[in-house]
Amino acid sequence: MSVYTHVSATELSAWLANYSVGRLVASEPIKAGIENSNYFVTTTQGRYVLTLFERLPAGELPFYLGLMAHLARHGIPCPAPIADLSDRYLQSLKGKPAALVTRLGGASIERPGAAACAELGALLARLHLAARSYGAYLENPRGPRWWRVAAQDLRPFVKQDQYELLESEIAFQSQHRFPDLPRGPVHADLFRDNALFEDGRISGVIDFYFAGVDCLLYDLAVCANDWCLVDPERDAALHPGRGRALLDAYHAVRPLTALERDAWPAMLRAAALRFWLSRLHDFHLPRPGMLVHAHDPEHFRRILVQRIAGGAPSLPA
Amino acid sequence: MSVYTHVSATELSAWLANYSVGRLVASEPIKAGIENSNYFVTTTQGRYVLTLFERLPAGELPFYLGLMAHLARHGIPCPAPIADLSDRYLQSLKGKPAALVTRLGGASIERPGAAACAELGALLARLHLAARSYGAYLENPRGPRWWRVAAQDLRPFVKQDQYELLESEIAFQSQHRFPDLPRGPVHADLFRDNALFEDGRISGVIDFYFAGVDCLLYDLAVCANDWCLVDPERDAALHPGRGRALLDAYHAVRPLTALERDAWPAMLRAAALRFWLSRLHDFHLPRPGMLVHAHDPEHFRRILVQRIAGGAPSLPA
Repeated sequence: MSVYTHVSATELSAWLANYSVGRLVASEPIKAGIENSNYFVTTTQGRYVLTLFERLPAGELPFYLGLMAHLARHGIPCPAPIADLSDRYLQSLKGKPAALVTRLGGASIERPGAAACAELGALLARLHLAARSYGAYLENPRGPRWWRVAAQDLRPFVKQDQYELLESEIAFQSQHRFPDLPRGPVHADLFRDNALFEDGRISGVIDFYFAGVDCLLYDLAVCANDWCLVDPERDAALHPGRGRALLDAYHAVRPLTALERDAWPAMLRAAALRFWLSRLHDFHLPRPGMLVHAHDPEHFRRILVQRIAGGAPSLPA
Repeated sequence: MSVYTHVSATELSAWLANYSVGRLVASEPIKAGIENSNYFVTTTQGRYVLTLFERLPAGELPFYLGLMAHLARHGIPCPAPIADLSDRYLQSLKGKPAALVTRLGGASIERPGAAACAELGALLARLHLAARSYGAYLENPRGPRWWRVAAQDLRPFVKQDQYELLESEIAFQSQHRFPDLPRGPVHADLFRDNALFEDGRISGVIDFYFAGVDCLLYDLAVCANDWCLVDPERDAALHPGRGRALLDAYHAVRPLTALERDAWPAMLRAAALRFWLSRLHDFHLPRPGMLVHAHDPEHFRRILVQRIAGGAPSLPA
């Protein structure tokens, strides 16, 4: 269970008077999530999620909330931040930065088929197109600069061969930067548990707290490495049918360029590296008070090794 | 049927490429409404309403769309305009200004009881509180200035005693202005058919195309004159129970002031005058091409006469 800050019904009722959402009916802590404290909040008006930001740099929060608001008003199904009576998305509660966002229906799919991957591809392309008119800027906080810092932090904790793989992949990536690829705000963490489905369609994309500006293709690589594995437990290769479905559906909405086709294999490696690093980091250097078990870092090492070996489906021409 | 401009599925599909709402699934003209052409639009993403503005001054449209967007992001259940890929709410289609907004569920209630009136009162107060941080300004386009113009236009068409009643009421109102009452953006047309209910709660407030800045109390008077009549066909007096429910629920969210209590009887007369004038105007001076029958103006004359006679429930102290 990962609610770090307890908010009582009395405290929440008083706090909701800052908003135009009616009176509190019920609230319930949300157990998933490792970065923030979250509550489901039901009022006489509707259903919301309250987030208390436990760890994110305060300076980054306006980028995330503004991006969600921007996407929501473009018709992308994502949590819409609710503005308070002073017209601000970011409030504070119990001494923490806090925000209220709409709660979306639907449920994530653990084993998506080709149809779900196609849904995701089309939605991701629409999200990228809508996000390009967003005015704020935040460099992907888990980009190359962070990779190098994280690898140094991890040096005392990982085996020599693992450290060498990290270093060699970081070196490879530094020789394969793609400054001319289409860039813009990306979700950067659109794993299966961050997409809600209802009746076969995506009813919500959630958790934008790793978003930043990066190559749009990077977002697609993050998705492919989670949604399209042949078998998450045993085979890290990309499943040809599901990989194809994801890429074709994306391409139909935002046509991929020749430069992006060339960059695809390296981008899949970059996306694997980033999550291997963060899982190693959470495993060996858990933050004080971190209340959930870290994911197994080994999963993303296998994906990285597989992507280096190659054989990913190519992008649509 | 009041769709003035026909939009084919092919035209609509092409136009929707300006947005991030997926592909067109179906569209259907909406028969209600006399000011604009409206279509229900279903896409792979969701359900929307397309409005082509046939008559409203182009300069006023940003105020209306911006107000709806502002209220929606404060949690007020109203149509949320969808921004296009250039981040604009106002587009054009078939040479007309056009906008796409979210479609809300629910249905209006023809004979609201006290509980529905209380729902309305609470929602109207929340709407007023949320709207006060809206930055744009448009004076109520159906305010005192318009009353005088409309009465002059009508002089050749109405009977002498009716004209005298219009003139004497306009004179009364000009001696009873309330510059110190709380002001802000008001809906100004929140009749029963502009509120959608679902499971006893208001799921949507629609049609903001008469909104403007005015006394907040004026909005409450417009509602009382439509929602709280003893019998819309036979008795224009305010029903004590429903009137009380509306006012008490509003007061519980935004406490009414002593000044507002003093102004209440005159405000009910102002709200009756405004709609008597516009119904006379639509009846005697229909716009070319106006495709629906005008409402009977007599209804609001009866309300005005009844309000002049007095006996309205007083505001909560």
